Amino acid sequence: MGMVGGGIGAFIGGVHRMAANLDGEIELVCGAFSSDPVKSKASGEALYLPSDRVYGSFQEMIEQEKKLPADVRMQFVSIVTPNHMHFAPAKMALENGFHVVCDKPLCFTMEEAYELQALVKKTDLLFALTHNYTGYPMVKHARQMIKEGQLGALRKIVVEYPQGWLSTKVEDTPSKQAAWRTDPQRSGIAGAMGDIGTHAENLAEYITGLKITRLCADLSIFVPGRLLDDDGNVLLHFENGAKGILHASQISAGEENNLNIRVYGEKGGLEWRQMEPNTLLVKWLDQPTQILRTGVGALSRQAHAHTRIPAGHPEGYLEAFANIYRNFAFCLRAHLEGKQPDPIYRDFPSVDDGVRGMLFIQKVVQSSADTQKWTDF
Amino acid sequence: MGMVGGGIGAFIGGVHRMAANLDGEIELVCGAFSSDPVKSKASGEALYLPSDRVYGSFQEMIEQEKKLPADVRMQFVSIVTPNHMHFAPAKMALENGFHVVCDKPLCFTMEEAYELQALVKKTDLLFALTHNYTGYPMVKHARQMIKEGQLGALRKIVVEYPQGWLSTKVEDTPSKQAAWRTDPQRSGIAGAMGDIGTHAENLAEYITGLKITRLCADLSIFVPGRLLDDDGNVLLHFENGAKGILHASQISAGEENNLNIRVYGEKGGLEWRQMEPNTLLVKWLDQPTQILRTGVGALSRQAHAHTRIPAGHPEGYLEAFANIYRNFAFCLRAHLEGKQPDPIYRDFPSVDDGVRGMLFIQKVVQSSADTQKWTDF
Amino acid sequence: MGMVGGGIGAFIGGVHRMAANLDGEIELVCGAFSSDPVKSKASGEALYLPSDRVYGSFQEMIEQEKKLPADVRMQFVSIVTPNHMHFAPAKMALENGFHVVCDKPLCFTMEEAYELQALVKKTDLLFALTHNYTGYPMVKHARQMIKEGQLGALRKIVVEYPQGWLSTKVEDTPSKQAAWRTDPQRSGIAGAMGDIGTHAENLAEYITGLKITRLCADLSIFVPGRLLDDDGNVLLHFENGAKGILHASQISAGEENNLNIRVYGEKGGLEWRQMEPNTLLVKWLDQPTQILRTGVGALSRQAHAHTRIPAGHPEGYLEAFANIYRNFAFCLRAHLEGKQPDPIYRDFPSVDDGVRGMLFIQKVVQSSADTQKWTDF
Amino acid sequence: MGMVGGGIGAFIGGVHRMAANLDGEIELVCGAFSSDPVKSKASGEALYLPSDRVYGSFQEMIEQEKKLPADVRMQFVSIVTPNHMHFAPAKMALENGFHVVCDKPLCFTMEEAYELQALVKKTDLLFALTHNYTGYPMVKHARQMIKEGQLGALRKIVVEYPQGWLSTKVEDTPSKQAAWRTDPQRSGIAGAMGDIGTHAENLAEYITGLKITRLCADLSIFVPGRLLDDDGNVLLHFENGAKGILHASQISAGEENNLNIRVYGEKGGLEWRQMEPNTLLVKWLDQPTQILRTGVGALSRQAHAHTRIPAGHPEGYLEAFANIYRNFAFCLRAHLEGKQPDPIYRDFPSVDDGVRGMLFIQKVVQSSADTQKWTDF
Repeated sequence: MGMVGGGIGAFIGGVHRMAANLDGEIELVCGAFSSDPVKSKASGEALYLPSDRVYGSFQEMIEQEKKLPADVRMQFVSIVTPNHMHFAPAKMALENGFHVVCDKPLCFTMEEAYELQALVKKTDLLFALTHNYTGYPMVKHARQMIKEGQLGALRKIVVEYPQGWLSTKVEDTPSKQAAWRTDPQRSGIAGAMGDIGTHAENLAEYITGLKITRLCADLSIFVPGRLLDDDGNVLLHFENGAKGILHASQISAGEENNLNIRVYGEKGGLEWRQMEPNTLLVKWLDQPTQILRTGVGALSRQAHAHTRIPAGHPEGYLEAFANIYRNFAFCLRAHLEGKQPDPIYRDFPSVDDGVRGMLFIQKVVQSSADTQKWTDF
Repeated sequence: MGMVGGGIGAFIGGVHRMAANLDGEIELVCGAFSSDPVKSKASGEALYLPSDRVYGSFQEMIEQEKKLPADVRMQFVSIVTPNHMHFAPAKMALENGFHVVCDKPLCFTMEEAYELQALVKKTDLLFALTHNYTGYPMVKHARQMIKEGQLGALRKIVVEYPQGWLSTKVEDTPSKQAAWRTDPQRSGIAGAMGDIGTHAENLAEYITGLKITRLCADLSIFVPGRLLDDDGNVLLHFENGAKGILHASQISAGEENNLNIRVYGEKGGLEWRQMEPNTLLVKWLDQPTQILRTGVGALSRQAHAHTRIPAGHPEGYLEAFANIYRNFAFCLRAHLEGKQPDPIYRDFPSVDDGVRGMLFIQKVVQSSADTQKWTDF
Repeated sequence: MGMVGGGIGAFIGGVHRMAANLDGEIELVCGAFSSDPVKSKASGEALYLPSDRVYGSFQEMIEQEKKLPADVRMQFVSIVTPNHMHFAPAKMALENGFHVVCDKPLCFTMEEAYELQALVKKTDLLFALTHNYTGYPMVKHARQMIKEGQLGALRKIVVEYPQGWLSTKVEDTPSKQAAWRTDPQRSGIAGAMGDIGTHAENLAEYITGLKITRLCADLSIFVPGRLLDDDGNVLLHFENGAKGILHASQISAGEENNLNIRVYGEKGGLEWRQMEPNTLLVKWLDQPTQILRTGVGALSRQAHAHTRIPAGHPEGYLEAFANIYRNFAFCLRAHLEGKQPDPIYRDFPSVDDGVRGMLFIQKVVQSSADTQKWTDF
Repeated sequence: MGMVGGGIGAFIGGVHRMAANLDGEIELVCGAFSSDPVKSKASGEALYLPSDRVYGSFQEMIEQEKKLPADVRMQFVSIVTPNHMHFAPAKMALENGFHVVCDKPLCFTMEEAYELQALVKKTDLLFALTHNYTGYPMVKHARQMIKEGQLGALRKIVVEYPQGWLSTKVEDTPSKQAAWRTDPQRSGIAGAMGDIGTHAENLAEYITGLKITRLCADLSIFVPGRLLDDDGNVLLHFENGAKGILHASQISAGEENNLNIRVYGEKGGLEWRQMEPNTLLVKWLDQPTQILRTGVGALSRQAHAHTRIPAGHPEGYLEAFANIYRNFAFCLRAHLEGKQPDPIYRDFPSVDDGVRGMLFIQKVVQSSADTQKWTDF
């Protein structure tokens, strides 16, 4: 693995590295950790990389690595830069034969998104987007239960992603994380909706197996002087007639990272909360609610394949994130060996999920500005 | 107290009687428990009432009671019939000088609502509407915290009322409760929105002290053959610029009676759930969340005045309901004695709240049918 | 009902009255609310009693009421005084043909306990002890599940009753509640163990249907200058070979009234917590835990008979307390009519439970002072 | 790192590897994964180790690695075998100059324990025992709060470790995990008490900073035919006069891995549960309980130093385990560089904790057999 971005002080870069390390299937062999070569070098050194594998730019990394023998050079690129810097390295990596893992949202504009999508199709290289929340075992299980019809036809979906960390104008403090997320030049046309609303959208479509068909959005900027939405409420219609609500917020004071979803069907309902991810509540008509737990009893094969340790030993965010990397690694190994991977591991968000996320951003922004109720999605 | 409705087998009539009994401040002295005189008699007997105080109709009750000496006759009427039968007894009671406690929603049509409102104003009689969920001590405390500005200016309100009991066509079984609630002739123009959506609306406005100014509603009928909405999702704008979401549902499979509200302001947030009503979570910016509990520590005078027993001895739905009756009784006693009640007890939902609830029903139904996004409220 | 004790400012007297009021089956007709006649009068007046039914002493009350016509006089006595004043009114009531409801613990000494037990047997009058926590519907259901063998043979019982309100020397403040509970002259030989340990013991034996056969206790006084135990830890053996732990404490800082019990058998386990009493967790071997809830699904007849309102409308402490009064009233009515009550209502703690509680107090105090491990019970 | 044990199919070996991998500070370079050389080879291959670094026995590994150049050979041994096979590799490693990480309990007998303790002292090599539960950030914070006196003098400690997985005779099925844990030849003189009771003891002493001074134990074997305790209840006295309860069980049907602790002092209390490890409840006298959360607000430096990701992104068992490995790695690096490590990282369980755990096992077994109440510890 070669990394683009994620130098010292970054948040998500470290997460990607820990996720890639966890299962011992992936080795970080090189990186362009910063657009500042000095900082990139320092970062590489702190990561125990040989100095000749630490590059001053992603271009240099891709070019140089390409020249190395096949068994030495990186096999894929992991892109962990802010949104506006996903496209260029992803494109160049694909064009030079490197597989890609990319943080979300996919990129900056719809044009970029479609270009990447076409490029992945054309090159037949592997591409994973780290919508990491779908990596949790109980999310996999929820999806499977719904797929098997255990809840009957779905009727209502409520997905929420409240955070409170941008309740004040944090972007005016030296917070690198807040600065780029609230900056239209680096984040894109949406703030909270792009940063976390897309996770909610992805989670809802992943678990339900249903596509959103139209939506009605009400985005707000609550913190004076902020340039992008910090809160949004959205009504949803799904392809099977189900209705829903999605709301995401970064001004919900006192909330940490409270992504959660409730799905109701004819026969029962599900509830999952990211902050207590090893629990899946299953609600039945006039029967006791069941507490499904990672590792307990006869869960689906999908849940088991993404669980590392026995029941009661909580697995968290990094393990879910690592499931994406591990599945990617298993598929990459199969790819390199010319084999088919076990289908259970071919389960990570794709460039198509990325395009869908970009469309979601575009549609909620458009809907919010509209006086008509519904915007097709 | 004389009761209209609430014969044997009714749900809410029994609740009203227990709530009225609890504090020993109110005595049931007569009733017209059913439009069927035989059933009314049987009900009165089961309640240990003398047979001459059990009437065959509310008209008879009001006429006869009026003739009794002042210290013997009922002092107020409690109306616990289905929605379409609130107006007539309420009107007649007011016109004959009896105070009124009435179940919600106030009545059947806006015309009736305005007429009752005018009548209450004209007669200067006491009128309480049993939006009982605002009777909980921690709801009172939440309202007080917000009033005192502890959360700063409010930004976001999420109020939910999911139930699952109408997930199947229960109205086709011998369920009296389901039958009238899903019948436009008895329930009115809305189903779930009238039955429980109004509770959510009332709770949100009570706690925040803010009025909803416009809304965008998406009502659904999920159970085939049903005539009224069994689910609804609503975007809200509040008078101070706050945004919100209200959703109410009777097809959220596996949900009991999960009314809950979250309010976020500049400085902090609140979360309250009716099914665990003695807990109020208070969330702060970058500080530990606090678990406020009925009876623990220095809560507001409002909370204390509506709490009966020490911390850790859970008070529930009936106690909250009883707070409305007890406050009404205290105010009635003061009224009869020509005194002013302690303002802390002048805290029960009024006919104006009832008019507002009726308007809410009208507006969500109208908005749901509209292609325009916003409907003024 | 005639009440002994429970004047203005008392805690448990008000609880008894609300519990007796709730279901409309019992009427307070007289009382000796205080040993101070002036205070007794004032209390009676506040309760809307006619002044000639408010007495200056329990002796006067029993004597005078006895002279009244059978359809006027009180039918039973409710005793809500501190521990040292249970015996005399209970004895006199029984000797004069009045049924009795008495707060716990039964009395002050074992001699008194045995005397009351004999008297109840001899007079064949009804006697209820308000170990109110067994009045909760989910406690009834737990007992029934175990009785039916759903958990298999029981192995382990953990019952806890932590409170924190005596963490400081509250008895030196003007707290009437703390004063008598920490005073050996009024409370008896035990503090926390008598006040709340007996509730834990009663709950454990009621739910499991098993008797404790021996115990090993370690009582402590943590607050300097206090005269009775404010904390105690006890190892238990049960008659079927099950083992257990009971601990009760009034110095567990920050705890409210956290009575809870866990029972484990060969096939599954149960968990119930008084502060969230409408939930019963049922744990199975390698199967999802179930959340049983008051009013949801096919619960036992025992649970239903002690539930008033539909699922999701929380019933609390007063409703559980009222279940004892209501069952007592039903049995008393049957008794007066010479009928057998429905066995499902013959379910309230008896004088025998009271004797057992007194023995428990004696045994834990004895064991705590002993150097031998086990004390037979 | 060279590993002893942990071949394919083992549980704890995989945990150690993931924990060592997570932070990118440690590299697995060799191993003797099984006493069966074929199985060891296969395991090494699956871990991408070169075949010449996969050994058939720990003796071979230590001997061969010792001959390698200092910058190539393993720097420490990680021992993840069943209890009876900790001593020999640990001893040999220390005697040959290798640092050691060892799973708990330390070894098989007190003699072995004391010998290892002496050897560590003599060689001045680093030795970490993986009492992993003390690796959680909120456990660190709890310890720090108590150290700073925020709770005042401690009074009561309740530590529990219920599991249910041995509720049936699992050792008769092909469960490797159950087989050795219930076998006196491999597990030692205790079953549940050695396997998980020691974790509870270690957690209690770590958080409180207090030593247990005497105890009274009641161990049981509930599953017929089992040879070692599967349940135990213990009364505790601590050095400052605090009292406590420890219970551990593997027959608490339906429990997963529910280690938890409550500590009560003069001024407040703490509650932490391993299955929701990012939450620490802090209870105060007559003040709202606070929910302290990993990453939220101004936590102690100790908590921050053991937290990887922002609030609301749950860290779990592996992250806590990894904190031991990372701290060990930091200290080892400092040791190799002749520097002092930052004291905040010198925080991992030592050989002395291991000796204490072995003593605990001995004392509870002895106490359980005794008729005297107290056994000194």
